[in-house]
Amino acid sequence: MRAPEELRDAVEVYLGALPLAPELGRLEEALRYALESGGKRIRPVLCLAVAEAAGGSVEETLPAAAAVELVHTFSLVHDDLPALDDDAERRGRPSAHVAFGEGVALLAGDALLAEAFRLVLTYEDSRLARELVTATLGMIGGQHRDITGDDADLAELHRLKTGQLFSASVGLGLAAAGVPEENQSPWRAFGDELGLLFQIVDDILDEDGFAVRLGAEGARQLADEAAERARERLRAIAADTSVLRELIDGLAVRTG
Amino acid sequence: MRAPEELRDAVEVYLGALPLAPELGRLEEALRYALESGGKRIRPVLCLAVAEAAGGSVEETLPAAAAVELVHTFSLVHDDLPALDDDAERRGRPSAHVAFGEGVALLAGDALLAEAFRLVLTYEDSRLARELVTATLGMIGGQHRDITGDDADLAELHRLKTGQLFSASVGLGLAAAGVPEENQSPWRAFGDELGLLFQIVDDILDEDGFAVRLGAEGARQLADEAAERARERLRAIAADTSVLRELIDGLAVRTG
Repeated sequence: MRAPEELRDAVEVYLGALPLAPELGRLEEALRYALESGGKRIRPVLCLAVAEAAGGSVEETLPAAAAVELVHTFSLVHDDLPALDDDAERRGRPSAHVAFGEGVALLAGDALLAEAFRLVLTYEDSRLARELVTATLGMIGGQHRDITGDDADLAELHRLKTGQLFSASVGLGLAAAGVPEENQSPWRAFGDELGLLFQIVDDILDEDGFAVRLGAEGARQLADEAAERARERLRAIAADTSVLRELIDGLAVRTG
Repeated sequence: MRAPEELRDAVEVYLGALPLAPELGRLEEALRYALESGGKRIRPVLCLAVAEAAGGSVEETLPAAAAVELVHTFSLVHDDLPALDDDAERRGRPSAHVAFGEGVALLAGDALLAEAFRLVLTYEDSRLARELVTATLGMIGGQHRDITGDDADLAELHRLKTGQLFSASVGLGLAAAGVPEENQSPWRAFGDELGLLFQIVDDILDEDGFAVRLGAEGARQLADEAAERARERLRAIAADTSVLRELIDGLAVRTG
């Protein structure tokens, strides 16, 4: 059972060596730039850890894990554009549109999304692709609610904007490991709590969302409850889920 | 065998009634706006006409045909954005970003692409999805060449930017009709010539590309040659390809 840091290294190596469609030509540079910006790789690590805990192989799950990260990266590249969040920096480096221009960043985001689907379509079982596309649509719907200020139901907004891709990370890990659908629900319930935990901590760090609604202390309590429920869900699974427990602990105390 | 206008009507009805992902919420309005902007629906009509000529069913091919149109519509919505072509009008109406704002148009384009994949993934045979994703990546690569002025090889630029989606229209029609891969090449060769014809006539109407390189008369001659080669390709196919011949004739003389 590999530790989270080892899984993250495996993701980095895989993404670094990932062949992109040759038809992209010189646009590839912008995709690589966005993909190499580091980040915590939480979603692909979650996908790999779930697959390994469920008896699957990390190597065979890497394309699915990378596909989730590509969807996440696509969303960051587009979110940073002046038309949306207008962020000039991302993880201490110029955003893609600052480095390459808005038009190229727009196309690079589009290409990242298409590459994600290309990757997940390398699996014979097309349920993986269907799960990723459904999650992507949910994420886009959440983003739309966010920019139009449709955030009365904050839990629903987060379930879409963040939760869907967390949920797909778990679902793709299970599918890559060959876990039958009738045995997936405890794993998926864990993933939902983990996504919620991630988002609440994000709000605490960014001082928005739940932190504004509930205050820092109220949000902290909500995060602790989500972490506890996530641990409970793991206890219901008859497998070695120690790495997944590490992921919960890491998310609960993260500071960036 | 349905005439091109009947096929186009079938596409309009299908697109008008197409259920979109409920998670998109109110973003659906922007997707509908972009999809309802009319247009010639050449790609989905081509897809349906190929399927019917190859012995397939129009009804069973409609999701694939619509998926191609959704990819095309996604590309128009993003191309019209200020970051790319900055077109305030599309077919006599305000572009999506003028009607809904840049951020919403950006997300609507993203969602159209994801919806296209959702649609094509309704087929059991995931080769349809793989063909569409490859074509989409080629189209994006062509668009990038276009905006960066990398147009020394105009034929290659067009093969990517326009040809790939024409090619996928034919490929998806054949796959939906169940034509084995070893029998597809004459159909695909026809599709390639048709895509080239479409693009040359486009350049003549827009007075750019081939029309600038070769002059209006030179471009006209090139178009006539492509149309003739497309007809020749059809003669090599042992099926009733009369509707496809009509499509060639229609594209050769179109004025808008």
